Amino acid sequence: MVQNTSYQNCIEACQECAAECLSNVVSMLGKKSDNACPKCCLECAAICRLCVEMMAIDAKFASEACRLCVKVCEWCAEQCAAHDHDHCQQCAESCRRCVEACQSVAK
Amino acid sequence: MVQNTSYQNCIEACQECAAECLSNVVSMLGKKSDNACPKCCLECAAICRLCVEMMAIDAKFASEACRLCVKVCEWCAEQCAAHDHDHCQQCAESCRRCVEACQSVAK
Amino acid sequence: MVQNTSYQNCIEACQECAAECLSNVVSMLGKKSDNACPKCCLECAAICRLCVEMMAIDAKFASEACRLCVKVCEWCAEQCAAHDHDHCQQCAESCRRCVEACQSVAK
Amino acid sequence: MVQNTSYQNCIEACQECAAECLSNVVSMLGKKSDNACPKCCLECAAICRLCVEMMAIDAKFASEACRLCVKVCEWCAEQCAAHDHDHCQQCAESCRRCVEACQSVAK
Repeated sequence: MVQNTSYQNCIEACQECAAECLSNVVSMLGKKSDNACPKCCLECAAICRLCVEMMAIDAKFASEACRLCVKVCEWCAEQCAAHDHDHCQQCAESCRRCVEACQSVAK
Repeated sequence: MVQNTSYQNCIEACQECAAECLSNVVSMLGKKSDNACPKCCLECAAICRLCVEMMAIDAKFASEACRLCVKVCEWCAEQCAAHDHDHCQQCAESCRRCVEACQSVAK
Repeated sequence: MVQNTSYQNCIEACQECAAECLSNVVSMLGKKSDNACPKCCLECAAICRLCVEMMAIDAKFASEACRLCVKVCEWCAEQCAAHDHDHCQQCAESCRRCVEACQSVAK
Repeated sequence: MVQNTSYQNCIEACQECAAECLSNVVSMLGKKSDNACPKCCLECAAICRLCVEMMAIDAKFASEACRLCVKVCEWCAEQCAAHDHDHCQQCAESCRRCVEACQSVAK
């Protein structure tokens, strides 16, 4: 448990989303894509990592980071969801869970 | 040079700021602080790292990341500048350079 | 779940350890320390983050990263355990769990 | 300049390599690859980032991190060099510069 325990759920959602997104980038290498997936996953992993760090240190700008994360994750979920691959569908789901968790923090 | 060469200057400013900030956290360990320094430096290092990644991949959300970075760096510069230590003064200067560079990208 | 599901347990241990370590750095700011804590926590958070990324992408060098993580976490656990603060004790425990998880991967 | 100025050159080589590698991942998306490129670039970016952080805080394990970085960068340079694309060639060069810089630190 980090200092500010109200962040715990969102930290976990961001951690999971970051790992899923990186994993999806690798799964998509060499595959054709007709949209921003898997580039969006690289962006999404990066902002999720930032949010984890910001919340872990109970940062002044944690909620602003989460607000940006909501936008990136929503876009990433949309892009990945358009691909039939299991890994893309799974990534989209992680992103959606992350959107919800970050929305609570961003308020 | 990364793909989008217009980012090169800002990438370097963010890289330098991230390293200075982390270095300043260590220099401040065990020293009394009457303000947010060096906690602000941890936040600042984190957002600078995000900006580097976002610009390196020419991300859709790179300018939004830089916009947030401007806010964090301005705050961090203010906090560190209030301390007489050389390392804090130097950190404040890196933050100010980063503010300028990120403002150009954030436009 | 990332691609290589045998990593899942270790990914979670590293994620938790990274967050606890960063949180402990902040908790220790301004407090006197007679040993490497909380500087070790900064190192530990950094290597844990690397391991998460390496495992998430099923990297060729994931087990080598985990081998280095074992060393850093063992040292960090020892340093933090020497401090009575609850946050240091908790950090030491996260480090020990991370040592065990990384040892399984490092084999 | 970070605290331990002997690291400055290597920090810059690792920063550049991390950015080039991430950039190359994006340049390679959707292109066929007959070897580990661009997956190696993801690993390489991750270990380079670790090294930057370790050196910025003058970490106990900085040289061990650089030792691992030498291995990852050598492998990444080899993989990328086998591809004719300008971006891959450029990435290979960044990796080679990083190998040299990390070897000095790793000693």
